[in-house]
Amino acid sequence: METDRRGRPRLVASRRPGSSARDEILDAAAELFTTVGYAATSTRRIADSVGIRQASLYHHFAAKDDILDALLAGTVDASMELAVELLAEDGPMAPRLHTLVVADTAQLCGGAWNLGTLYLLPDLRVERFAAFHRRRGELRSHYRELSRAVIAEHNGAPDANDLPFRLVEAVINRRSDDGACPSDYPWTTAEAALRVLGCASGFARMRAQTASRLASPPE
Amino acid sequence: METDRRGRPRLVASRRPGSSARDEILDAAAELFTTVGYAATSTRRIADSVGIRQASLYHHFAAKDDILDALLAGTVDASMELAVELLAEDGPMAPRLHTLVVADTAQLCGGAWNLGTLYLLPDLRVERFAAFHRRRGELRSHYRELSRAVIAEHNGAPDANDLPFRLVEAVINRRSDDGACPSDYPWTTAEAALRVLGCASGFARMRAQTASRLASPPE
Repeated sequence: METDRRGRPRLVASRRPGSSARDEILDAAAELFTTVGYAATSTRRIADSVGIRQASLYHHFAAKDDILDALLAGTVDASMELAVELLAEDGPMAPRLHTLVVADTAQLCGGAWNLGTLYLLPDLRVERFAAFHRRRGELRSHYRELSRAVIAEHNGAPDANDLPFRLVEAVINRRSDDGACPSDYPWTTAEAALRVLGCASGFARMRAQTASRLASPPE
Repeated sequence: METDRRGRPRLVASRRPGSSARDEILDAAAELFTTVGYAATSTRRIADSVGIRQASLYHHFAAKDDILDALLAGTVDASMELAVELLAEDGPMAPRLHTLVVADTAQLCGGAWNLGTLYLLPDLRVERFAAFHRRRGELRSHYRELSRAVIAEHNGAPDANDLPFRLVEAVINRRSDDGACPSDYPWTTAEAALRVLGCASGFARMRAQTASRLASPPE
């Protein structure tokens, strides 16, 4: 018989970032999935790593794939919102794509664990993750829409329209190889994303606009 | 007691590409590692998939990680050789980087299985794969050396020197998302790799040179 144990005292003191048990479970799972592997990690091991009982974990997530799904959603949700916002605005597209690339790259460079390394897992190619794939596909479409507009503005190569999205996700490999990304990587990536579309100037102004919009100083 | 069974008749008729049992084992393993997962694939399952006994598989590879190591080496060896060759030549660097990107991208787009999806596996972060990491690191260094020279030739942004290597590997994600890459993707990627370094013209000539060198017609 299962009872609600959310109020029960911890087996060990909390040692994970996060204001709630749910956040601690997500952090522990992110660490284990990216360092031990998704297939090789059990919910038991995640619970042990947080210092809670497995039954308590199940109050927050019914199964291991629900934890993975929540982690994956966290890698696209904020960028999706920003992309939709930027697409609805007026003016030239180049500065808008610049802002999206900086924000999205910074997000993928940040966070304690390199969650993007999970995108290519065969385990993700099942119906359970269809919603995530759809959402990441929408984000990719938004990138392409912005990119096509920049290509039109700058007489760029039409077949380059998927490359800004790819440059952003390439940060996952850089982080995996070097353990971290240089602090100016979001800005480097944004400029590169515009250059592949034929836009090769106006970067100083875009950097200032993006920095003020995202309220983070340019490097 | 183990005897050499290489000469024994197959349990089932061969249905895999490859002129030798070794090639068939590599093909079966590549399929299983990329579709089922590395951790979830046993040597028994690989042997079954080829239609040979597990003992016969062990005559070719002592362990599962030896198979993975051979597959990974196959994704960098030819590009390494070409990079060394190109670096030793004379003349401007841009056309040489163009050639390397086209050849390397075509190689990653080709082949029956998308082996690059295995690069980010936590299973690879062990001493057993140190030689592969070193070799891929050398390939990356060669890309950076070529890229730095192109940046110097074209007054590009110095911090972009790692991006051509990243653009090439991004093909792995494109292939994973869409099942395949467009046939002109190597050419699209090569032009983008040069654009991020500040080189924005002279592509028609480079395409012709690269095509003639690689003896494959430009798209």
